[in-house]
Amino acid sequence: MIEAIRRASAGTAPPYGEDDISIGLKERFSMLFERDVEVLPVITGTAANALALSTIVPPYGAIFCLASSHIVVDECGAAEFFTHGARLLPLAGSDGKVMPAEFARALSRNDGDSIHQPKPAALSLAQSTEAGTVYTPDELRELSAIARARGLKVHMDGARFANALAHLGCSPADASWKAGVDVLSFGATKGGAIAAEAVIMFDPGLARDLAYRRKKAGHLVSKMRFMSAQLEAYIEGERWLRMAEHANTLARKLAGAVAEIEGAEIACPVETNMVMARLPDATVAKLRSAGARFYDWEPSREGKTLVRLVTSFATEDGDIAAFTRAARA
Amino acid sequence: MIEAIRRASAGTAPPYGEDDISIGLKERFSMLFERDVEVLPVITGTAANALALSTIVPPYGAIFCLASSHIVVDECGAAEFFTHGARLLPLAGSDGKVMPAEFARALSRNDGDSIHQPKPAALSLAQSTEAGTVYTPDELRELSAIARARGLKVHMDGARFANALAHLGCSPADASWKAGVDVLSFGATKGGAIAAEAVIMFDPGLARDLAYRRKKAGHLVSKMRFMSAQLEAYIEGERWLRMAEHANTLARKLAGAVAEIEGAEIACPVETNMVMARLPDATVAKLRSAGARFYDWEPSREGKTLVRLVTSFATEDGDIAAFTRAARA
Amino acid sequence: MIEAIRRASAGTAPPYGEDDISIGLKERFSMLFERDVEVLPVITGTAANALALSTIVPPYGAIFCLASSHIVVDECGAAEFFTHGARLLPLAGSDGKVMPAEFARALSRNDGDSIHQPKPAALSLAQSTEAGTVYTPDELRELSAIARARGLKVHMDGARFANALAHLGCSPADASWKAGVDVLSFGATKGGAIAAEAVIMFDPGLARDLAYRRKKAGHLVSKMRFMSAQLEAYIEGERWLRMAEHANTLARKLAGAVAEIEGAEIACPVETNMVMARLPDATVAKLRSAGARFYDWEPSREGKTLVRLVTSFATEDGDIAAFTRAARA
Amino acid sequence: MIEAIRRASAGTAPPYGEDDISIGLKERFSMLFERDVEVLPVITGTAANALALSTIVPPYGAIFCLASSHIVVDECGAAEFFTHGARLLPLAGSDGKVMPAEFARALSRNDGDSIHQPKPAALSLAQSTEAGTVYTPDELRELSAIARARGLKVHMDGARFANALAHLGCSPADASWKAGVDVLSFGATKGGAIAAEAVIMFDPGLARDLAYRRKKAGHLVSKMRFMSAQLEAYIEGERWLRMAEHANTLARKLAGAVAEIEGAEIACPVETNMVMARLPDATVAKLRSAGARFYDWEPSREGKTLVRLVTSFATEDGDIAAFTRAARA
Repeated sequence: MIEAIRRASAGTAPPYGEDDISIGLKERFSMLFERDVEVLPVITGTAANALALSTIVPPYGAIFCLASSHIVVDECGAAEFFTHGARLLPLAGSDGKVMPAEFARALSRNDGDSIHQPKPAALSLAQSTEAGTVYTPDELRELSAIARARGLKVHMDGARFANALAHLGCSPADASWKAGVDVLSFGATKGGAIAAEAVIMFDPGLARDLAYRRKKAGHLVSKMRFMSAQLEAYIEGERWLRMAEHANTLARKLAGAVAEIEGAEIACPVETNMVMARLPDATVAKLRSAGARFYDWEPSREGKTLVRLVTSFATEDGDIAAFTRAARA
Repeated sequence: MIEAIRRASAGTAPPYGEDDISIGLKERFSMLFERDVEVLPVITGTAANALALSTIVPPYGAIFCLASSHIVVDECGAAEFFTHGARLLPLAGSDGKVMPAEFARALSRNDGDSIHQPKPAALSLAQSTEAGTVYTPDELRELSAIARARGLKVHMDGARFANALAHLGCSPADASWKAGVDVLSFGATKGGAIAAEAVIMFDPGLARDLAYRRKKAGHLVSKMRFMSAQLEAYIEGERWLRMAEHANTLARKLAGAVAEIEGAEIACPVETNMVMARLPDATVAKLRSAGARFYDWEPSREGKTLVRLVTSFATEDGDIAAFTRAARA
Repeated sequence: MIEAIRRASAGTAPPYGEDDISIGLKERFSMLFERDVEVLPVITGTAANALALSTIVPPYGAIFCLASSHIVVDECGAAEFFTHGARLLPLAGSDGKVMPAEFARALSRNDGDSIHQPKPAALSLAQSTEAGTVYTPDELRELSAIARARGLKVHMDGARFANALAHLGCSPADASWKAGVDVLSFGATKGGAIAAEAVIMFDPGLARDLAYRRKKAGHLVSKMRFMSAQLEAYIEGERWLRMAEHANTLARKLAGAVAEIEGAEIACPVETNMVMARLPDATVAKLRSAGARFYDWEPSREGKTLVRLVTSFATEDGDIAAFTRAARA
Repeated sequence: MIEAIRRASAGTAPPYGEDDISIGLKERFSMLFERDVEVLPVITGTAANALALSTIVPPYGAIFCLASSHIVVDECGAAEFFTHGARLLPLAGSDGKVMPAEFARALSRNDGDSIHQPKPAALSLAQSTEAGTVYTPDELRELSAIARARGLKVHMDGARFANALAHLGCSPADASWKAGVDVLSFGATKGGAIAAEAVIMFDPGLARDLAYRRKKAGHLVSKMRFMSAQLEAYIEGERWLRMAEHANTLARKLAGAVAEIEGAEIACPVETNMVMARLPDATVAKLRSAGARFYDWEPSREGKTLVRLVTSFATEDGDIAAFTRAARA
């Protein structure tokens, strides 16, 4: 990544995305997604999500999403800011995924004709999810069909899109627009970039709107080539998928290690780079005192805590071994 | 009310609240509330609630409120618009009221130090509630104490404040600022005015802020005397409390009538002008076909529907009798 | 007007514009404008203007308008609030009107392709203007043609639309949509209503958007029939045009009286109910001490002040005579 | 810079500014500014300006600034977005600077007591200015005294703060808070960083507000150490001032070269890294065809165009020579 930035710094280049690397991104991502797409790099996943949503949700709109989704619990209401006051309607889920029946039920509670409630405007899905699970293309199609039947657009939070693809083994197109996704937050930071995300717009008619919104939000970077260079390097030669596959593999190994801890339970299918596990509180304490960093997903209950363990492109077998040692210590 | 408007129309008067009636409101309401208050008339309860909240909640703030509250389910996200993107955090309740323990638990889930989530900024309570129940001053004090301990302000949606007072028999002060309320939406429309609500601001330091926000939202009416005249007439000689007491009394009679319908259950204490009742679906159908208008509060379940029956200053004994006949028909 | 309100108060009626009078407005205004229109009553001209603009201007848009227009100098930035941050681009004018050449020049300075500046989105014109002058249908067509050629929509601030029509003698259609206007703020308050304005939407595709925005802004009044009744009474039997013609006539008389004041000059053609006049400061003082109320339009310069004198449906010949006496005293 | 990023990439570090480099910034900048300051890195100057303004300007506020300032002409209304609808009030200037008399006059036109206009809330100044000129500390004090007397706060757009300091030879404190500045956009990108700016908050009471706003705007970068490392490297050992001095020196040389072009005029004092010059249109064409890149500041008039020529830390003597050759070709 740093090498990519260094190369981008050679010579001078026009600012604000007029450089060759930034211009080339459109072609590279269009090939990757097997259709014409617009690619707008931004610096954070929060910005990508909020900007993406702002192009498909009016200020009086409502966004259906999982109660535990990143846009609900980790972005300080960025979606509300960028959409100018739309409302997030949190859904209960299963294994970190929106369930079609639950979504349909919530949608039916708002009959769509009443101006007394925000207008249902979008469904936002994370792929892979905050629990590390993955929607199959069939599951996506089912959800997006429900959305479309009521005139809603579909947003995908792809901060970990690479991990989902590495698990599915399908094409980026199959896991996005071919399954009904209108706009995708494409993450690279969690996958190894220093700071580079992108909004991938499958509806070219909304690209200009998005470009204005990005500028107005202070997210049009002058020396954009440094950001574009990271995205270019990220997807070059399937590096992104190899790195994601590595992280996924390590998560499976980690899950194996966790399963052997006494009293531990795996709480969710391990499909990408996350292990959702219920660990005895004593184990949690031992791991933390050994320097492990992870989130408590729920408060402790009956002596166990649901935690989320995350692997990355930089995780190594030795880290798993150290984890096991710490848990047993 | 119309007579009050007619009187206000005599002669000419300065616009935008500089007329005598509008200026006099401050004094009248200050006497009513036993302290210096600011009174800003507006045309709808939605505007009153949203403006009130916008003075105490920053764009990155969060507002705790009942899941079934008016600001959540009936105002199309006005609170989000006027606060520029704050978030409503819905709480489960009991008998239409926020429970201190539930509020404290929700508050503790947001540790208040994390910028990754909206900052807890306000608690919004309806008095009387959407279920027709009433917070006692003690209950209000308990809730506002929890709020204040974490730096939150307290808003009261008083669209039916009169009905609450008529039930409590306490002073307006006891049911508002003396119990920890910072800003009150004072309703008159549901109590008999044509269209007149007011924001009552107990913190004079925020009055100027509110005045700008009202103007910017298009809610500063040029011929404000017509609105002020309604508010003046409304509180004159305790007319508002007498009309509310009338509605409350009729609701108690209605509850008596409902209780005699076979298969009907009263779902909530009847404290003001509402009867929350579970009625057999056949009864619901008969009432509707006889022309009765009321809301389904929940979808039908096991042959019964939870409905909300509302009486008003204009309801008469004959209406109750007609209701009973229709239910039996 | 009060009589109309009284009639509307008879019996009960569904809230939120579902009553017969409110529903009938669409038909009446469609006949008045010789095409299908949507009519959304609101309580202030500020709300009408800001809501109208919010339907045709994105948050990153720019609105061309006269520097002295109401939306610039009298509405505390309501347009910016309702559009969520669009920018007003003030134009110099002549006799209170936007000049086509100046508008074209301003438009050419923004090449429309740069996302570094707000996107030109609308032209807003007042009819009649803040100086009391009137655009002819030809002038409107010329301006709207320039706007349309660049993809801009046209808004008309018709707080004094009646006065303009009374002057032009043409049909409401000729002075609005037939001349390129997309959305009209239709004023009745300045013309005699207690508090009733309306947004007239010529593009039915935007009506739903507008309805949501009105609700979210707290401008959907529950007892809307009282507002609708005023609008109905206002346009019934050409009352609005007769009242406007009366005010216009009185303004011409007032202009005659002003012209005879020593040192006074009429600053603008007197076409509606306004007289823009440069009066000696001593005259201004005498008028004010006699109780006359009017705006200084510009600060005093060389012993004279540009003032705006406004007549209304309620002005009488005796008022002109009193004015003349006061000026001479 | 790239070396600084490489060093920051060693090992792992907590995200969201909890790393050692980011934490250390507060101390380094506090020493630099000789008082306790808060430093919040962001990715663009537009974000820095808009965030800074949002902490001191309410949604109903007005911001006085030069008509040609960056926040007016180059940021697509970001200030309006982040402040939720405040208005920019453009002032005419002289040599790219706000003149005290003009500012005072504009301020007096808004009497500050009328809610019909946005409330004067801030003065925004660029240091150095868009014309390359510099406010002396005395000039800043005079302007900020006028602002403070009316309750306005002062923002400084310091995208080129280094160039101003290199010219003034005074301390950062003297050119900012000691002269009345409340919040500073501190630029590093134009001075050599890849992408790093910062908001420097002199009022610690507003730091928390700013932190929430940054997060909500998607400007809190997870791997912030890469951004912080650039800022650290930028101010280390006065590198920033040396690079700015270099650019300023080259601008003086460039001005010398321009002065010798026949028909060229220097339009503004050359105080930093910019030469505002009126060049014959033929010269402009020759320069462009030779590959020079610069902005037309005004459209061509009478055969000459006002252009802005900018030098940077990377400009060399050879570039000036090439410029001279191209102009003469």
